Amino acid sequence: MTQRNEIETMPREPVIAIIGAGAIGAYYGGRLALHGHDVHFLLRSDYEHVRAHGWMICSCDGDFVLPAERVRVYRDARDMPTADLVIVTLKTTGNDRLAEMVPPVVGERSAVLTLQNGLGNEQRLAELVGADRVLGGLAFICANRGRPGEVVHTAHGLIRLGEYARPSRERAEWVAGLFNASGVRCQVLDNLQQGRWEKLVWNVPFNGLGAVLDLTTDRLIANPEGESLVREVMAEVISAARSLGLPLRYEMIDEQIAKTREMGPYRTSMQIDRQHGRPLEIEAILAAPVQAAEAMNVPVPQMQGLLRLARVVDGQ
Amino acid sequence: MTQRNEIETMPREPVIAIIGAGAIGAYYGGRLALHGHDVHFLLRSDYEHVRAHGWMICSCDGDFVLPAERVRVYRDARDMPTADLVIVTLKTTGNDRLAEMVPPVVGERSAVLTLQNGLGNEQRLAELVGADRVLGGLAFICANRGRPGEVVHTAHGLIRLGEYARPSRERAEWVAGLFNASGVRCQVLDNLQQGRWEKLVWNVPFNGLGAVLDLTTDRLIANPEGESLVREVMAEVISAARSLGLPLRYEMIDEQIAKTREMGPYRTSMQIDRQHGRPLEIEAILAAPVQAAEAMNVPVPQMQGLLRLARVVDGQ
Repeated sequence: MTQRNEIETMPREPVIAIIGAGAIGAYYGGRLALHGHDVHFLLRSDYEHVRAHGWMICSCDGDFVLPAERVRVYRDARDMPTADLVIVTLKTTGNDRLAEMVPPVVGERSAVLTLQNGLGNEQRLAELVGADRVLGGLAFICANRGRPGEVVHTAHGLIRLGEYARPSRERAEWVAGLFNASGVRCQVLDNLQQGRWEKLVWNVPFNGLGAVLDLTTDRLIANPEGESLVREVMAEVISAARSLGLPLRYEMIDEQIAKTREMGPYRTSMQIDRQHGRPLEIEAILAAPVQAAEAMNVPVPQMQGLLRLARVVDGQ
Repeated sequence: MTQRNEIETMPREPVIAIIGAGAIGAYYGGRLALHGHDVHFLLRSDYEHVRAHGWMICSCDGDFVLPAERVRVYRDARDMPTADLVIVTLKTTGNDRLAEMVPPVVGERSAVLTLQNGLGNEQRLAELVGADRVLGGLAFICANRGRPGEVVHTAHGLIRLGEYARPSRERAEWVAGLFNASGVRCQVLDNLQQGRWEKLVWNVPFNGLGAVLDLTTDRLIANPEGESLVREVMAEVISAARSLGLPLRYEMIDEQIAKTREMGPYRTSMQIDRQHGRPLEIEAILAAPVQAAEAMNVPVPQMQGLLRLARVVDGQ
């Protein structure tokens, strides 16, 4: 099969399912729907409101409304059509529900893309639908839910995605093409795992310490004690990734600290979850990387301590 | 010199100085003044208000007012009379100012009692006024400042005090007698250092973790992860104390956990300081115990981690 053939087998008018339409799912699904795609949203908390009033997306890249008559929302995946592209944006704390949410929308040709945080999500989906269907993506976006049916997208939006088990890039290029044509910048990764670990270099210290200490990113590096702790955690993540054969550079630490200084005060999603008393994405963002490091006998004492404190704070 | 003689040399109408009259100083000094003692308060933030309106003490042991005409307040220790008993209740984060606050009120016969938190306060005072003058005490009290000139005393109040360097208990008995006669329960300790470390068994985990994680005491032990962490920190404090020859029992851990459960939700002083953006008493409550343990080669990894996180959070 040549590249050309494979792309040509992709549906021109794909049915798209968004599984777990919180802020991230509503935003990306909303962009795809705004571009004319046939998007079906599975959601829970705002279901009644969105069914009656649609989505209101306040975006730094341009506000838009999806009126109720153009939004198809569902509470139960069994009511949804089979989708060509299934995009999983469920919070990882709800991963136990994936078994009932994903298989009903998966057909013979479906591709399943997880845009969830952290490690382990592709594996879990692979167990449910087969590894060959699975793609993974990193969403670099600041978006939160506002009032019911409202999403506030304040910055960024880039998606970087790649295949989980397939060697070919063709399907990933097709998915990236859908996003790029719909106003969402999207890049294809050669090595999804490397991309995931690179994102963890930032996410483990800033989500972890941010939630545990209840400090915004700027305050975590406001004094030398905080900066040195963040740097140590980052170094541990990089060491763990390198033990897995992923060539992460230690120079990333300087780059990420500098980038974070430029961002100003920023509340990570895990800090926000903590402030709202919601479950923290501990397994995907902290526990899975620690387990991976431990399996490779890489010492990660700061990450272990952080994981432990996160479990103390979780759900309080 | 017999016991009787030494007590008889103590002044019957002592001049008492309260150095650093926050909630603790105002409460204890207020009780002594209410009983008729000649009490002089050195204070900073509420000076103008207290000079004009006196103290209002809302106490679980009975509210009382000290009207302005009965309260002697000072902003500068050099304006104060020499005191027979100097009671230091300054927050330890202000210890740098002790050199200008204490010596001016110390005369030939003065006794100097520190009721400050943590370790190292007696040593510091000994350097300023001579070890023989110094007594130390532990204040088991829940009291906070309310509106200007107002102190809210919500629970407890016991003082346990002892000599720092003198072998005799006589002077300590005299000070305890002043408190007990004034409605403040006070016990004399045979071994002040042991008392200080026993209090640290509770203070290190609950003040430390409470401030760092911004959790009340009940929430710190609400899940198994939190309880086990608190227990490990307590065990480290006990091990450090035992290495110094102080016979603390590991059974304290069970007792303190049980006692803390009975207390219900409680914000430690360090958590309150953190919430108000005030400096944390890190040196006295966390750093000095860690240094003592390190000097004895006792491993205290949890305390070291906690100290580090406290320095990240401090002053944010």
